[in-house]
Parts: sequence; C-alpha cells; structure tokens
Amino acid sequence: MASTYLLCLGLGFLILFHACFAQIAQGTDATREQQQQQQRFQTQCNIQDLNALEPQQRVESEAGVTEFWDQNDEQLQCANVAVFRHRIQQRGLVVPSYTNTPELFYVVQGIHGAVFPGCPETYQESQQRSSESQSRSQDQHQKVRQIREGDLVALPTGSANWIYNDGPSELVVVALVDVGNSDNQLDQFLRKFYLGGNPQPQLQGYSQSQGSRYQGSQGGEGGDRSRRGGNLFRGFDERLLAEAFNANPDLISKLQGPQMQKGIIVRVEEELRVLSPQRGREQEQEQEQEFQGSGDNGIEETICTMKLKHNINDPSGADAYNPRGGRVTTVNRFNLPILRYIQLSAEKGNLYQNAMMAPHWNLNAHSVVYITRGNGRMQIVAENGENVFDGQIREGQLIVVPQGFAVVKRASNRGLEWISFKTNDVAMTSQLAGRASVIRGLPLDVIQNSFQVSRDEAQRLKYNRQELTVFSPGPRSQ
Amino acid sequence: MASTYLLCLGLGFLILFHACFAQIAQGTDATREQQQQQQRFQTQCNIQDLNALEPQQRVESEAGVTEFWDQNDEQLQCANVAVFRHRIQQRGLVVPSYTNTPELFYVVQGIHGAVFPGCPETYQESQQRSSESQSRSQDQHQKVRQIREGDLVALPTGSANWIYNDGPSELVVVALVDVGNSDNQLDQFLRKFYLGGNPQPQLQGYSQSQGSRYQGSQGGEGGDRSRRGGNLFRGFDERLLAEAFNANPDLISKLQGPQMQKGIIVRVEEELRVLSPQRGREQEQEQEQEFQGSGDNGIEETICTMKLKHNINDPSGADAYNPRGGRVTTVNRFNLPILRYIQLSAEKGNLYQNAMMAPHWNLNAHSVVYITRGNGRMQIVAENGENVFDGQIREGQLIVVPQGFAVVKRASNRGLEWISFKTNDVAMTSQLAGRASVIRGLPLDVIQNSFQVSRDEAQRLKYNRQELTVFSPGPRSQ
Amino acid sequence: MASTYLLCLGLGFLILFHACFAQIAQGTDATREQQQQQQRFQTQCNIQDLNALEPQQRVESEAGVTEFWDQNDEQLQCANVAVFRHRIQQRGLVVPSYTNTPELFYVVQGIHGAVFPGCPETYQESQQRSSESQSRSQDQHQKVRQIREGDLVALPTGSANWIYNDGPSELVVVALVDVGNSDNQLDQFLRKFYLGGNPQPQLQGYSQSQGSRYQGSQGGEGGDRSRRGGNLFRGFDERLLAEAFNANPDLISKLQGPQMQKGIIVRVEEELRVLSPQRGREQEQEQEQEFQGSGDNGIEETICTMKLKHNINDPSGADAYNPRGGRVTTVNRFNLPILRYIQLSAEKGNLYQNAMMAPHWNLNAHSVVYITRGNGRMQIVAENGENVFDGQIREGQLIVVPQGFAVVKRASNRGLEWISFKTNDVAMTSQLAGRASVIRGLPLDVIQNSFQVSRDEAQRLKYNRQELTVFSPGPRSQ
Repeated sequence: MASTYLLCLGLGFLILFHACFAQIAQGTDATREQQQQQQRFQTQCNIQDLNALEPQQRVESEAGVTEFWDQNDEQLQCANVAVFRHRIQQRGLVVPSYTNTPELFYVVQGIHGAVFPGCPETYQESQQRSSESQSRSQDQHQKVRQIREGDLVALPTGSANWIYNDGPSELVVVALVDVGNSDNQLDQFLRKFYLGGNPQPQLQGYSQSQGSRYQGSQGGEGGDRSRRGGNLFRGFDERLLAEAFNANPDLISKLQGPQMQKGIIVRVEEELRVLSPQRGREQEQEQEQEFQGSGDNGIEETICTMKLKHNINDPSGADAYNPRGGRVTTVNRFNLPILRYIQLSAEKGNLYQNAMMAPHWNLNAHSVVYITRGNGRMQIVAENGENVFDGQIREGQLIVVPQGFAVVKRASNRGLEWISFKTNDVAMTSQLAGRASVIRGLPLDVIQNSFQVSRDEAQRLKYNRQELTVFSPGPRSQ
Repeated sequence: MASTYLLCLGLGFLILFHACFAQIAQGTDATREQQQQQQRFQTQCNIQDLNALEPQQRVESEAGVTEFWDQNDEQLQCANVAVFRHRIQQRGLVVPSYTNTPELFYVVQGIHGAVFPGCPETYQESQQRSSESQSRSQDQHQKVRQIREGDLVALPTGSANWIYNDGPSELVVVALVDVGNSDNQLDQFLRKFYLGGNPQPQLQGYSQSQGSRYQGSQGGEGGDRSRRGGNLFRGFDERLLAEAFNANPDLISKLQGPQMQKGIIVRVEEELRVLSPQRGREQEQEQEQEFQGSGDNGIEETICTMKLKHNINDPSGADAYNPRGGRVTTVNRFNLPILRYIQLSAEKGNLYQNAMMAPHWNLNAHSVVYITRGNGRMQIVAENGENVFDGQIREGQLIVVPQGFAVVKRASNRGLEWISFKTNDVAMTSQLAGRASVIRGLPLDVIQNSFQVSRDEAQRLKYNRQELTVFSPGPRSQ
Repeated sequence: MASTYLLCLGLGFLILFHACFAQIAQGTDATREQQQQQQRFQTQCNIQDLNALEPQQRVESEAGVTEFWDQNDEQLQCANVAVFRHRIQQRGLVVPSYTNTPELFYVVQGIHGAVFPGCPETYQESQQRSSESQSRSQDQHQKVRQIREGDLVALPTGSANWIYNDGPSELVVVALVDVGNSDNQLDQFLRKFYLGGNPQPQLQGYSQSQGSRYQGSQGGEGGDRSRRGGNLFRGFDERLLAEAFNANPDLISKLQGPQMQKGIIVRVEEELRVLSPQRGREQEQEQEQEFQGSGDNGIEETICTMKLKHNINDPSGADAYNPRGGRVTTVNRFNLPILRYIQLSAEKGNLYQNAMMAPHWNLNAHSVVYITRGNGRMQIVAENGENVFDGQIREGQLIVVPQGFAVVKRASNRGLEWISFKTNDVAMTSQLAGRASVIRGLPLDVIQNSFQVSRDEAQRLKYNRQELTVFSPGPRSQ
C-alpha cells in the first residue's frame, strides 16, 4: 500500500466578493479575521458509554460508494461533527460540491482538487499542447492539486471541490464535516450542495432519511419532496438559468438533470484530462508555500496560493518518535496555516506492536479518532472516574474522545495506526504518565498527600517512566 | 426622493471603563479584541418554504410608528436576527435607547446620532453663539452625526442612540438587530432598553406580547406586569435616583414617567437644537476617518472618532457596474472598519429593468434582503435542489437567503433595488454563472462528466455569459 | 483580617503538544489565537425576579468544605456560569484537578498553585538544601505561586491546579467556572476531573445529584454508577496503568483509590514542603511580568512565565477613588494579560458607609457579584423598566446582573464590599448618572424632549452630580 495512488483534484470555486477581493488576496486582514471564528455550537455530552462505530448508511454511485457514520450517535452529537467515507473506483469522479462548514479529510488511499474564490484561472493550455490534440479546444481553469495516501486536506467553508481517482486502485477518503464550527450559521445537520450529478437525498443531508431533521414532515408532500434529491441547478427556473448562462433550454435541462445514473461518483470514460504540473514540481511549490506560511505572519500568504494539504503520514515529519514504540505526527495551524481559519487540526499515530500511547487528556478539543490500520485496545475515562469505553478498536472504526476525558491506547501485536481529527487549530493534550506528564510537574509532597503514598512511591510515580509520548512495550506487557 | 432629508443624530452614551479607557482610546488591543467575537447562536434552519415578509406588528408613537417583522418567523429564526422599521414624522425624535447586541440600519429616507463610551463632550457652544440666544444657556455634548438617504449606520453593542428627523418629510429607517451575534450574552429575543419616553411593552421586546418569550407567565401577575412598559428609570427607587442625580423627587418622577403620550417617538415643538458641523464639513471629516480606517491597521483608529456610517447608495462607490444592467455596492470591514467589531456587513443592489443578478450562494453568511424600491422575481434553492422560494418581491418586503442556499434575482420592467444585511463582516458569495463563476473555474472535462454534456456544450456553459455580477437583459428575457 | 495568610500553590500540568510547543513558548501566535474564542453558549434569560443567593450544596472533606451555588438557578443559567467556594482548614491541601473551561477565583482569605503545559521543572532543590535534610531526596517541579487575600487568580482551560493553606487560619476561595465560555466544547454543566483524592460525585459535577444532568438515568445501574465518584485514575485498567507508569500494581491501586477519607481537601500531617521563592522576591518577579504584559504586545510574553494573579484589593491600584465614597478596581486583559485568553475580567468594589455606586448598565458582559464584606441595598432593572431585584445583600451572598440590565448599589452604614466576575475580558459599563454618564453626553434639547422637562431641569439632570463612579453620601441619604 505504497503511496502510488495519484489523484487529480481541482476545486471549482469562484467568488463574488465586491471590491474587497483585492484586499483578501493581499492577505492582510481578511485571513486574520476569518481565523477568529472559534466558538462551537452547544452540544449534549451526557456520555455514559462510547462505542467503536462503523458507518451506518451506504449510498451507491456509478463509480463508488459513500458511507456515513450516524450523525445522531451521541458521541458524534457531543463532538458536533459528521463523518463520511468515499470509496472511489478507478477513474471515478466525485462531482463538485460545497458545504456550509469547514471540512478536513484524510486520504487513506488515493486524489482531490480545490479552487479559491476569485482566484484567476492560472492553468492554461499552451498553444503547442493544444495543437497536439486537434480535436480538443483550449482550456484554462483554476489550480488543481494532486493528493496521495497520508495527505490531510483542509476545505474552507463554502468552497466547492471535486475529486478524481486516476490511480490504479480504489481511492478511500475519510472526511470530517465540522458542523459544530462557528463558520456554520445554519443548524447542526450536515448539508451538501452538489453542483452536478444526480445526488440521492441521503447524500445531501443523510439524516433527513432518518427522520431526525425534517421531523413531522416525513408524511405527505414534504416527505416526498425531500426524497427527490437532485443537484443545485434543478431548483431554478429553466428560463432564468437559460438567461443567466445565455444558453439554450436543452443545455440547461442537462445541467438540471444530467442523463446519468444516480449518484455523485461518475465513471469517466476516457481519462480525465486536466492541466496539472508534474508531481515533483508541484511538491516543490507546496514546500515553498509551507515555508512562507509557517512564519509568524502566515497572514501575508494569499488565499489563492494557500496550501491546503499536508502529508501527515510521512515518517520524517514525526513530532514524537520512539524507535521501540512508534511515532506521532501533528498537523495544526503552525505547519498548515489554513487550519487557523477553519479551527481544526489532526494527529496521526503509528504504534508498533504492543506499544502504548501515554495516557492523557485533551485540554481544548474533542478528538475524533479513525483507525487506519491494525487494532488495539482503548480506554476512555469520564470526570467521575468511570470508564466510558474499554474495548478493542480496529481498522475502519471511529470513536470520539471528548474534551477533558482521559484516554489510553495500546496496540495489539499487529500494531495500531489512526488519524485523529481535533476540533481546535492548536489542540493541546496533557499526559498523565511519562517524562512530560502532569505528575512529573507536581512537587513530591503534593503527590504524597494526594495519593497517601510514601516519598519513595511518589518518586517512582514521577520518574519510573522516562519516555515522552510513545511508550515502548515494557516487561509488564503481555 | 432625492437625498434632501436631514436628520441630526447623537448617541448619548458614556462609559465607565475603569483605568482602561485610555488604552481603548489609543485603539491598541481593545478594538482588535472586540472583533473576535464571531460565533453566532445556534439556529433552527429546517426551511422548506420561504415567504416575502411584511411587518407584523405596528406600534404608534406621538410622532411616528415602529413596525416589527415577526421574530418567530422561521426564516428570521434561522438567520437569528430581528428587524424593525421606524417611520418618523417631521420633527420626530426617537428617544435614546440601547440594545444588548449590535445593530445595523439603513436610511431608506432621512437622520441619526451616536456617542461612544467615555468620549469627551467635544461639541461645545461658543460664547458668541450663546450670547445670540440670550434665553438659552450654553450646552456641550458628544459628537452628533447627520444621516441621509442611502446611509448604512452601525451601532456597537450596548451603545445608546437617538434619532431626530429635521427633514421636510417622513424619515424611514430599517434596522437589523443581530440577536444571533456573539456580543449578545442574553437569549435570542430582541430587547430594547429605553432611556426616556413612555415605551409600550411591544417596543421593548415585542415578542413578549405574542406569548413566545414569557411562556407560561402570561396569565396572572407576571403577564400583567410585562404589559406595563416604561423607561429604564422607572424601575429604580425614586429616592435612590434622587440621591444619584442629586436632584429633587419631582424632577426624578418626570424622569421615571415623562408627562407625554405613549411611545418613543416624540414631537419636538420648536426645532431640536443640537450642535452640528456644516454638512459639507462633516462629510470631509468622515472621509478623513475613512482614509485612516481602510489602511491595514484600522486598529489605530480610536473608538471615539470611529466612523459609524457609509453611504451605500452612492453610484460612485459601486463595486460592480454594468451600464446595461445596474450596480451592486458592498460595505464591509474594509470600507467601514467598525463592522469588524460587530461582525456584520451589507450589500446594496440596483437592477435596471429586466436585468438579473448572477445566481450565487453565500459562503459564510446569511443575507437578509429588504426591497427598497421596485419589484422583481426571486428564486432560492436549498441543498436538496428544491426551491424554497419562487415568487415576486416588492418594495417594503423582507426575505432571508440562508447561508449556502443558492439565489437568483431578476428585476421587473420597473427595476429592483434592495439592501441586504449580511451576518459576517466579510460576507462572501460565489457565482454559478458569469465570468467569475465556479463553472468558469472548473476544467472542461469535469463539467463534461458532471453534467454528461459534450465538450462544446461544456464550453458554452463556461463562456457564453461574459458579464461579471450584474447581467444585462439578454435576447431571451421576456 | 490582614493579608497574613500564606498559601503555596502549584499547578501540576504538563502538556503533550507535538512539535509546536516551542512556538507557543515564543508566544507568537498561539496566544493570539486562544484569545479569539469569545462567543458564549446560548442562554435562557427569561428573568423576572432575582434573589441574593446562598450556596445550596455542601460537600465535606477531611480538611475543609466545598460549597456550591445551585447551577440550575435561573440567574446562573442566564450568566451560564457555575460558582463554588472552598473553605480550607489550616494545612489543608486541595488535590490537583482540572476543568474543561476557564476558571477565575478570588481569595477571600488565604494560597494556590498552577503549572503550564510543557513548561520545564524550573524549581529544583539545590544540593546544599538537600543535604540539610538527609532523609529527603532531591525534588524538582514546576513553578509554584503564592496567593494572599485579595488576589484574583486565572486558570486556563484544562490546566491542573492544587491549593494548599499554609496560613494560620481558614483559607476561603470563591471560584467562577465559566461553563458558558467558548473554550468549553462539552455541555453547560460543571465538570471537575480530579487527579487524586477520593472525590464524592457532587464535587465532579454536583448537579448530577440533582437530577438535572443525567435525566432519566437516575434509577438503575446508571444512577448508582454515577454516585460512586473517584479520581481519574480509577477508570483505567490497573495493568495498563502499571505499564504506563512502569510501576507495580500495589502502587497503582493506591493511585486509583487512595487510602484516605472521602473528599478532595486532605490534611497534611507535617507542613507541605515545596520550593518557593521568598514572598518578597516572588512579587518582584510578578511585577516584571506585569510590566511586560501590559505593553501593546502582551503577546510576546510566554505562557510558561505568564502571570496568573493580580491583587485586586490593593488600594493603590484603584481605578476610581472618592475619599468620601470608596473605590473601585478593575482587573482585565490590560493589567492581567492571561484574561484575554480566557475572556473574563473582574471588578472589586469597596463602598464606605452610605456611599453609592453610580447606576449603570453592562454593555458587553454579565456581572456575577459576590459580597465579600458588609451589606447594602441593590436594585436591578430589566429592559421593560421593571426591577427584577430590590433588596438587601450581605457578606457571602451572590447575585447576577445580566448584560444590559441597569443596576445600583448603596452601602449600609457598615459599608459594602464585593468582587464581580465579568464574562468579557474587557467588560464595559455605561453610567446613568454622574460626570461620565450617558445623560451628560446628550444634548440638552434631547433630554428636554425625552423627559418633557424644562431646559433648567435638563441642566440639573446633566450637571448636579459631578462625581464620577463612586458617589459620596449626599444630604438626601438617610
């Protein structure tokens, strides 16, 4: 499962931002401002038992399948996020769509594309290339980005994007839609606005079909209506659209109801031809942007050139590494500045067999953990000292560690890997054991008296485990 | 309906801000800080049908009338705003009041006044002028601002303000009270605190009378009590106020219950005399402040001198202009810096006959549209591709376009003008058609496959409409 | 009641913040970012009657008692805060704990300690001192801070802290837990996570026991379970903890259930020995930090050395002082920069006998008032001009003045002192009477017409009370 998947991605997304766009492009205050939206929606976190979750709903498209976790599950309600997974077949294209809240997704395998509002169509076919393919006219479009396994991709609120799998096998993407984000001014339900295809209703706000959203409107015309689905153009009057596009009604009716199978993942017959730099060169560019962005004033970076992705699975980027235990990598506003505007971050963990992640709590974020490989054991403890989860977790499962709750992860003898989406752009954790733990920071006398232990015992609690974050399997591990 | 209306406005509003005011006045961090309150209250947006709304409640005062839109309407609930309209007769004075949330209002016709906390009483009668009117003593008070048709006025949370109509005819003001704003720490109901007059209860939180706010308290004493109304001084003990003002009880009882008709719009017998610079000179001053404010660090601008208004109907300020279609003007934090602290912005649209505003969606804001003149047709489409509004709108009506929803406006042969209040200080839109549209940014192959159209058709969708934001009536328009 | 109480405080709190901590320590953007979380949770503020509140629940520990105000009271619900009071006996140690939201507390009498994530263990026993006490091994731990009467202490979200009373008599601390703060991503109930001791369930989320939180789960196993209580370690598997701490199971079982009486305030048999600078020197250090912090860019200050406390009862720091009336002191983000990150501030008032605090309203914050000494009369007036409180308040009582509501305080002949916690880091008030009042800023003609008074009367309202904030008892006072 090497990172040989190649996807071409381009976000179709232009903005009407009267008179002010120039200033945004200069990146002065607009970006600083957007980052300040941080309060989350009110949640219900009466959590007594957590479960490792599998997706609950599966929606088939022509060239792939989209699976949703149950947004009404109490742990996703508490974290106030929706999670889904695309499985995109070879030459599958996920049609352009946008959401009223930021998204973060992780490429378990495979590509993707994003374009910013008002950004110029900088990708332009040269005369030369054009002449090679006589039958094809010249094209120009916004920047297209390539994505590979291990990439974390950030999508700002309301920006349209599409994904194409040009790799040799299935592309799998797990996405967090942060409906609790302050950018969301609607309610807490997932909403996807599709700019093409023939989306089923479940894809547009899948909880509708479960009766939770349109309560009481399921019977009668309302219920029927909400089951029709369709892309965004369908709702407009044909003649108004014909006028807007200055096109004939026949073409408009194709826009409103494409002659294709149900769904949002379309099979491209020939290969999808988009302009895209060589992969090597593109990475160079990204690195340049990263350099600019990680300075104190990432602000100067313009939105149009902003870096949207970061490979979080690259061993050379690990923040904590224990040759006998594994590694942990964090992507937050410091190494991916776009995250400051969407108030999210992520952590990738790779534990070797029987290794352990130091028990800790999240100070200022929820942690939405998706297991990418292997299996292991997790325990999560609430404020009353009761564990709300104690069990096995395995590849493909999801679990939420709520803010403040304490958690420990231990790999099986097959190892354990995960991606954690965190609801804060600088998510912080505090460890309960190890060299950087809260116990280490306490005076011995406070430990002695808090636990009624001897001075010698207090010292053992403080100093026996010298490792930092990833603990190697000790003599006590089975 | 030329802009000949003249109103004198002055906000009475001084603040007790111990020891720190100096720093605010220096505009260092305080302003930067206030701007960071951006998350909105949680809303319910289960919207299946929108309607063009007329005001539902009408409250008469001596010299004018105040009309409220129904705050319980589902579209205003979703946008989480309250809207009202003052119709102020000649020489009508709206007594000073404040609200626990920011306000934005638009002068359909007519004036207004605002004073900032702790700002010096910089308007002082000179000896000379004073001696001219022997019978009158000298006065000094805080800055008073004049307002004319087309002005957009921003009022920070908790600041008191009054409005006086010194023009030759009725003054009409439409106000958005952003109860969903993060500055509001109470609940989501409109609350007006009056510092004078004899306000009816409906004016103080009109929804009370509709049973929605004080549920279960309508019967019995509670219900009776809430119907009494009265200004803020009425609630204090007469003797405590007498001591606070060092005044005799007779005067205090006038403060608590002025001998005047019910209401908040008082008829001034002679003309209201306030100190106010020549209109020409005042505009000069405003322009100076605008210049300072639009720099990268509007922060340096002090609150006391901060510009509160911007004429959004001035053709020379249009951001998009199509001689055959009309114009669109935006006021946001870049051209009216106070907006960054109250997290709101506005758009004024003027469409000529049969012209069309490009179909688009709002990325990060609701748009609360009030029709100021003419009529036309609007369509609004939800995420499931169903239109939730398809109908005529006309002068004086209000409609909400929720975040993410797609919308198109088309003028009748009488033209169409509107003011849109937006719940973000840098509201952004993305167009579906035209030269700056999302379709234009997509590669041709993505369009082809998303809509199952030919390459030639994809090109027509991308390039047939070359105009930007305001579309002139095409050959296809009726 | 001189400030002779001496407490040693140290927060045990180390953080796992991969790769990014260095940048936080440089205080560049991380701190700027945290400050931007400002929107509060949605509240219910249908307030018709307020009461002066006494604590409702009392939980005994070995060496002290913790008293909670009823979080379900409508005024605390409106302000969205929880309040409790520790009464800590001599040599009492409150075991380390943390909360998922910021806290602010005031030392009515007595000490406390806090440590920041990832900060080095800078307090290290010297060889010399160590050799004096041969039987004791060397210790090193994070910074410990001393606290005295009149100190206001700020605790960032999720940071662990402990308190020890090394004074000669009881230490009393009143704490505001700002559950409505945007840092809180869980729900609106108080949650305390204890890292030691044997906490009763009421201490961990006391409202549980009142049925409000775990509604419907009181019967059966759920209810029983939530009554067990216990510290955070109890929830983990013994063997996992043994592996994490690399310690034997016997020691771990002490960690999970210390052999001590119920509770969180432990009696220390000998004196608690922690490393702490001389009190005089420590104050010097704090002043240095204050100096750095109060500049325009408090940002440069690192979190590890950040000042957490400010003595708000020091007469020399008064912001308003009237030799015949008393004084008012404000602590906000300008004189205690940590407050910008936790979005809270405070006001200390000391009124002499029969003096009066100018009637005013809070523009942008709730004010949670705790009476520290004496008694007096308060009136609070809602937007409809009705008073929602008119009565006596005395030492130990609590009352909320909601945002926008007008309030007046008048001392009895025994004087009146209070601490007000405010839900904004730059809380602002606007006065109704006095030299800095809103009335003073209005033109005479507006006053005349708003209250239907003569010009002479309008002048008396404007100018009769020349004092600023604290009014001396006038000839009209009884």
